[in-house]
Amino acid sequence: MVMKVGIIGASGFVGGELLRLLLNHDDVEVSMVCSRKNAGDYLHRVHPNLRGFSNLQFTEPDVDKITNNCDLVFTAVPHGSAFDVINNLLKTDLKIIDMSADFRLKNKSDYDKWYGYEHPYPDLLSKSILGIPELHRSDIKTAKLVSVPGCMAVTSILGLAPLIDSNVLKSGIHIDAKVGSSGSGNKPTSATHHSTRYGVIRPYKPVGHRHIAEIVQELNLISNDEMKFSMSTHGVNIVRGILCTINAKLKTEISANDVWKMYKSFYENEPFIRFIRDRKGNYRYPDPKILIGSNFCDIGFEIDSDNNELIIMSATDNLVKGASGLAVQNMNIMNNFKETTGLWNPGLYPV
Amino acid sequence: MVMKVGIIGASGFVGGELLRLLLNHDDVEVSMVCSRKNAGDYLHRVHPNLRGFSNLQFTEPDVDKITNNCDLVFTAVPHGSAFDVINNLLKTDLKIIDMSADFRLKNKSDYDKWYGYEHPYPDLLSKSILGIPELHRSDIKTAKLVSVPGCMAVTSILGLAPLIDSNVLKSGIHIDAKVGSSGSGNKPTSATHHSTRYGVIRPYKPVGHRHIAEIVQELNLISNDEMKFSMSTHGVNIVRGILCTINAKLKTEISANDVWKMYKSFYENEPFIRFIRDRKGNYRYPDPKILIGSNFCDIGFEIDSDNNELIIMSATDNLVKGASGLAVQNMNIMNNFKETTGLWNPGLYPV
Amino acid sequence: MVMKVGIIGASGFVGGELLRLLLNHDDVEVSMVCSRKNAGDYLHRVHPNLRGFSNLQFTEPDVDKITNNCDLVFTAVPHGSAFDVINNLLKTDLKIIDMSADFRLKNKSDYDKWYGYEHPYPDLLSKSILGIPELHRSDIKTAKLVSVPGCMAVTSILGLAPLIDSNVLKSGIHIDAKVGSSGSGNKPTSATHHSTRYGVIRPYKPVGHRHIAEIVQELNLISNDEMKFSMSTHGVNIVRGILCTINAKLKTEISANDVWKMYKSFYENEPFIRFIRDRKGNYRYPDPKILIGSNFCDIGFEIDSDNNELIIMSATDNLVKGASGLAVQNMNIMNNFKETTGLWNPGLYPV
Amino acid sequence: MVMKVGIIGASGFVGGELLRLLLNHDDVEVSMVCSRKNAGDYLHRVHPNLRGFSNLQFTEPDVDKITNNCDLVFTAVPHGSAFDVINNLLKTDLKIIDMSADFRLKNKSDYDKWYGYEHPYPDLLSKSILGIPELHRSDIKTAKLVSVPGCMAVTSILGLAPLIDSNVLKSGIHIDAKVGSSGSGNKPTSATHHSTRYGVIRPYKPVGHRHIAEIVQELNLISNDEMKFSMSTHGVNIVRGILCTINAKLKTEISANDVWKMYKSFYENEPFIRFIRDRKGNYRYPDPKILIGSNFCDIGFEIDSDNNELIIMSATDNLVKGASGLAVQNMNIMNNFKETTGLWNPGLYPV
Repeated sequence: MVMKVGIIGASGFVGGELLRLLLNHDDVEVSMVCSRKNAGDYLHRVHPNLRGFSNLQFTEPDVDKITNNCDLVFTAVPHGSAFDVINNLLKTDLKIIDMSADFRLKNKSDYDKWYGYEHPYPDLLSKSILGIPELHRSDIKTAKLVSVPGCMAVTSILGLAPLIDSNVLKSGIHIDAKVGSSGSGNKPTSATHHSTRYGVIRPYKPVGHRHIAEIVQELNLISNDEMKFSMSTHGVNIVRGILCTINAKLKTEISANDVWKMYKSFYENEPFIRFIRDRKGNYRYPDPKILIGSNFCDIGFEIDSDNNELIIMSATDNLVKGASGLAVQNMNIMNNFKETTGLWNPGLYPV
Repeated sequence: MVMKVGIIGASGFVGGELLRLLLNHDDVEVSMVCSRKNAGDYLHRVHPNLRGFSNLQFTEPDVDKITNNCDLVFTAVPHGSAFDVINNLLKTDLKIIDMSADFRLKNKSDYDKWYGYEHPYPDLLSKSILGIPELHRSDIKTAKLVSVPGCMAVTSILGLAPLIDSNVLKSGIHIDAKVGSSGSGNKPTSATHHSTRYGVIRPYKPVGHRHIAEIVQELNLISNDEMKFSMSTHGVNIVRGILCTINAKLKTEISANDVWKMYKSFYENEPFIRFIRDRKGNYRYPDPKILIGSNFCDIGFEIDSDNNELIIMSATDNLVKGASGLAVQNMNIMNNFKETTGLWNPGLYPV
Repeated sequence: MVMKVGIIGASGFVGGELLRLLLNHDDVEVSMVCSRKNAGDYLHRVHPNLRGFSNLQFTEPDVDKITNNCDLVFTAVPHGSAFDVINNLLKTDLKIIDMSADFRLKNKSDYDKWYGYEHPYPDLLSKSILGIPELHRSDIKTAKLVSVPGCMAVTSILGLAPLIDSNVLKSGIHIDAKVGSSGSGNKPTSATHHSTRYGVIRPYKPVGHRHIAEIVQELNLISNDEMKFSMSTHGVNIVRGILCTINAKLKTEISANDVWKMYKSFYENEPFIRFIRDRKGNYRYPDPKILIGSNFCDIGFEIDSDNNELIIMSATDNLVKGASGLAVQNMNIMNNFKETTGLWNPGLYPV
Repeated sequence: MVMKVGIIGASGFVGGELLRLLLNHDDVEVSMVCSRKNAGDYLHRVHPNLRGFSNLQFTEPDVDKITNNCDLVFTAVPHGSAFDVINNLLKTDLKIIDMSADFRLKNKSDYDKWYGYEHPYPDLLSKSILGIPELHRSDIKTAKLVSVPGCMAVTSILGLAPLIDSNVLKSGIHIDAKVGSSGSGNKPTSATHHSTRYGVIRPYKPVGHRHIAEIVQELNLISNDEMKFSMSTHGVNIVRGILCTINAKLKTEISANDVWKMYKSFYENEPFIRFIRDRKGNYRYPDPKILIGSNFCDIGFEIDSDNNELIIMSATDNLVKGASGLAVQNMNIMNNFKETTGLWNPGLYPV
């Protein structure tokens, strides 16, 4: 018997990608799709690719109906709007997977600093598990509320965690992130107009991007000493994909084999981590180009021996491993489904 | 028990897309992958997205080995190179699906005219079934050799067949085709260099494109009278996707409802034909943007009553419904698999 | 002494391109730049490329101030908003170049049909000269009001005029137009969002595009008999550029040399018409790729002898020869400047 | 009287861009254009945008003819091929501007390390002036041989020089460079094939890019202490443009105003340096999007006070300020032309 799932806030790109994955998932049935803005519309009016895959219509969100119709609910509403929704949902028997930032950070004061608002339910922060299976799988298994991390956060964290764990990197690590336009959501603005956004290399947050808070939180959970991380984020001329290029000074000299060993032992048996190490061809390093539509995080590195630095590269499809695919992976774990169900496909290439 | 399939000429984009689809197909196992150029390489060296999905290596093509290891073989070698390969394969028990143009045309003289070579095995032309299920499903079921049509041919034919069948269009139909760069294959040339090919609207064959021969052949099989068709083809700044915009003069006035009825009755129960009719939203007409990675052919039209013309639009992903997905659909039919197996997914959107 | 020019409605793409051209024009000085929305802003806030080229600020439009500060004014306000502005400007001594559609059509009833509004000043329609120098240069020289044609209209008209004049084409000509996103203006909508607009081949007006009215009007001025024209327009994944691919049935057989002669005699000494005829290379036909930033209209053709049809291709940069460059060319003619001043540059390539 | 200039190796993108700039330059006449590969071809066969701007044909390079026909020559041959050409040209009276890397580095051993070859004319290295006017203008004025720096080198150096000069940055500076495909030249390879190169974020040289050698050389000329620099380079989905995002740890706390003062005093009166500082709009930081076709280097920064770091951003059009425009700027200085002649235009926007 399949599980019934619902989505609150299903009209954005993250909601559409969730639907694409869930409508083809063997173990679940999408039973409710809520969107205030699009209530009454068929799914394909908003997500045109889904034409022919579902006769569902968007409905107004209603916690009672959701409780009656679903076993698990995804919340994909904007940051700052998920607080109350989730506070209400936590009172039901539903399992919850939240795509917003509202329950990612553990420290109430981080919301003041990074999001500029006082968190209304600080007591609930400890109830949420950050949905990175590679770090928190056992907690996710039994979680009632999983908070899916930010796309650039999870891509950076996965690239760094094994080496932070191995204690070989100095503090003061800098991440240079490049991301496609879908990362900005589907709301039309002059910043995302095709004529304006096409062809840019736009440094939209050279300092102070909110995802840094998650990176600092998660990697310092692993690190022996308090470490500093910074990130500069850029929009580039693609729709999907993230590449994080990470510059880290090494504590001591280290060989490439040593580094590979750290990665491999940390990520042993992880289904969605791939290591990219090739001396030939056009894809010798991680590149989101080969990940489009897939749930992998590809990781690679080079040692700069002139400077005793490591350059780590990690890549994802921001809407899949960076959002909706990761949410489905969490759902699979929370419900004892096979972890790769609905997600075991290569990226589309070339596209 | 799964069927064993092989691919000869598996290093191109069509071969890579076949592998993407076949490696996740429930009813088959890819047992041999041949490429003279890449013999010895692992698949992901050539098709980087497939890393982690197969441990196969390319081998030299060898009919004996293929016969021993496969039940069905796809041939994806260049036009002009498939003749001999298929002549040999026809002597075995293998089922064959050919992606080249070498067995698409029924009339020997068409090869002289459109391809500039004398066909070496004219007697074999009648043995091949053109792989358009919407037109030739019953023949495909029992075929030994299916020839997959050209991407722009099948997209045009599917847009026109119901109306040709209904005898409402005048002769002198013109097709304006726009296609992504993957349609040119993966061989590097100055014409396909990123700096040169990016941003073009390049009319690469305003007249005389070879796919016209298939269009003329197939639609005149349906038409009462001999009809004339022309096509102008353009490269546009995408990797995947075809849109055919077709201008057809109407014999008499006709309503939109009449036209929809013709389409619906002709394509009743066709799993991979979708009709696009929306008055709102950004996707009111067929657009390959919403088809990327999927096997659909989307069809729509408008009547120009000032000119008593019909503008028909048909769209596909050239590597899926225009090539490898269509080949898998044919394979499913030839082997009594469920026709949608391995193909029932929406396009990736946005991408 | 330089002439002083102003722009009303200078915050759009057409206004920005006018500024780019006028700020480097030897014979004029930009003295006023009006925009209700951006009054008070420096130019580079809206047109970031102009940083360092002007200290002007946008001001509220004010006919008195414009009259005092300018000899000539460009109006680049939206369709339907230019009526009153121009009615007022016509009472002054200013020369006027209007970029909107409000004075392009000569027949009042065409506004009812194509624009859906009753023209408030039908008597003024005859006072405007349509700004196509290749057709109306002598009238432009003495015009007080020049109306710059639509981008797809002028590109189509220039491709067709010589052959219509030579009376070799049958009625029922179809134009397939492809255009970049800048043609839709800079207002953010879901249709022009980068994630939504990127990678499309979107048939946004398969029938009934408003520019058809200008094509019908202008070419029937040249034609002996009333001829019919239709156009299907498509958005493609570029910012600038138009290609019109025109399908025209021939009245009689005709040679390529004959066609070239018609073009050459009609466009003798035209500075901004180029003929593209090459048998080698990647640019054997017109392609906006090589026109970016330039004022040329490139024209080429092929004869389809199987069908006795002509395929004509004409290409422009929609913001230059399709709008602002053409406006400057008209300004040069109206003021006895050298016609190529400020416009004599090749396209940027590759870009 | 205009000066006569020639180009050796004029068939690449850098050569084409030089021609675009020189054919419209008031003070020079292009008298010879050499290319072994394209000898006999008209310019527009190779550089299609130049159709109508010149009747020159490519000729075989011949030092005697060049000496007779030119006063100054640009050499745009590949790295490793310029040695002998320039050794011969140095024996003539010609002024020389070399676009290759063969005379950029002052230290013979750097060629061993970064280029893998022994420099055949180490004595000539001191005769070449590195063509960065902002650093070496007075030497350029009297130079016989100017060597134009690498595109990512000059973009990085211009972003860093004032702060290195002010001694506020710690050693261990990391540059993350993103560049369009034209930076790879026009030779077709599988790496630059449109289908393969489109949509990438490809880290092609995470460590060890050759332009690092120039950065280290030039900035250590300015620095008090020997400083270390590293660079990771990425290909992104555009044709033109570079953005360097530079992460530098600060020696002490410093205000934004202090940093702006350092930049402004160092670059006082520099015509082609622009500072980008805006709190609103889509272009608050440098972005090559607004620089296409222009000779500017745009510079901006943010202070990361959490980490006491500076994020510096510098952007150029790699074919203009990063190559051919910079070469023309050097030519203007060497010949006492106005420094901005032929270069004073804004970028094309939007494109």
